[in-house]
Amino acid sequence: MIHKPVIIILTHIVFKKLKVFLKVLLYNQVDMKDTFFTSTQASQITGCSRRQLQYWREKGVVVPTVNASGKGHNVYYSMSDLLELMVMEYLLSVGLSFETAQESLEMLRKKQPELFKANASSEELKRLMILLSPNQLELADYDPEAAFLRVNRHGLPLVPFWGEMIHQRLRENLEGFSGNQEKM
Amino acid sequence: MIHKPVIIILTHIVFKKLKVFLKVLLYNQVDMKDTFFTSTQASQITGCSRRQLQYWREKGVVVPTVNASGKGHNVYYSMSDLLELMVMEYLLSVGLSFETAQESLEMLRKKQPELFKANASSEELKRLMILLSPNQLELADYDPEAAFLRVNRHGLPLVPFWGEMIHQRLRENLEGFSGNQEKM
Repeated sequence: MIHKPVIIILTHIVFKKLKVFLKVLLYNQVDMKDTFFTSTQASQITGCSRRQLQYWREKGVVVPTVNASGKGHNVYYSMSDLLELMVMEYLLSVGLSFETAQESLEMLRKKQPELFKANASSEELKRLMILLSPNQLELADYDPEAAFLRVNRHGLPLVPFWGEMIHQRLRENLEGFSGNQEKM
Repeated sequence: MIHKPVIIILTHIVFKKLKVFLKVLLYNQVDMKDTFFTSTQASQITGCSRRQLQYWREKGVVVPTVNASGKGHNVYYSMSDLLELMVMEYLLSVGLSFETAQESLEMLRKKQPELFKANASSEELKRLMILLSPNQLELADYDPEAAFLRVNRHGLPLVPFWGEMIHQRLRENLEGFSGNQEKM
């Protein structure tokens, strides 16, 4: 015999899962073949902390495809979202400030939307360079001569940004992640 | 006839000034020929905000030569301190995080103490490069070939750091500052 409170809790859980499922189903931009990740999984895969993920959700920096304003297990990150997280993680890991990383991500979204397509081909992922100058931030196509001139003649900083590298890093992290999952 | 409270206030001001004067006089590392700047002046010259200056004093990032723990008008920055502030200001202005700027400053102090000598000759001010890698920060002598290889082959960020440029920027700012002072 099952007690009444247990039934209430079970019904609540089923409804919660159903709600998320319907959200995923109804979200018009979502391809159901896509894989989705909870914020815990997204944090483990990308190396961003859960606190960072939460902060970026609130600030609108990287917004999960499903339930952007939600908290905890209700939130789902797509592969495209993970690529955005990888970009933030990379730029912060090389020592850029949060503002610079965020602004670079915004420029990358505009200049190269293919970067955030999970199935982008190598040809689609161009080499770029982030040009850091005092109180100025630019994004340009990578050009070896211009890069050398900038660094060597003008003594100005340069952050090469190769889309292929971000995709490669995500692939490696995903492999490590699914390897760990199987062991568990 | 002067009222008693006025005398008390005047005595207080005279003692305060005398205290600072004695501190400057007694501080064994201080060359009395050096010029000193209040935090307001240091802020106007270097472009760092007064809030940054206060925060960096508290954190021990850039500590004024006279009265490091003091507040407001009791604090005096030497030319050497201004050069440290200029380094922080430059590294932050090109988009590095506070932690990266602070760590770079510490490395610069060790590797090239001449950088913070107000009367350093051009020969003493070597060209360096800050090497930003994921979760790693290094400082090396600038080498055009190594710089190009790093950016072009490995796709890794590089911040050229030319001591002469920092001195040049400070000289220009000081000229602008004394120009403004004369107009006032």
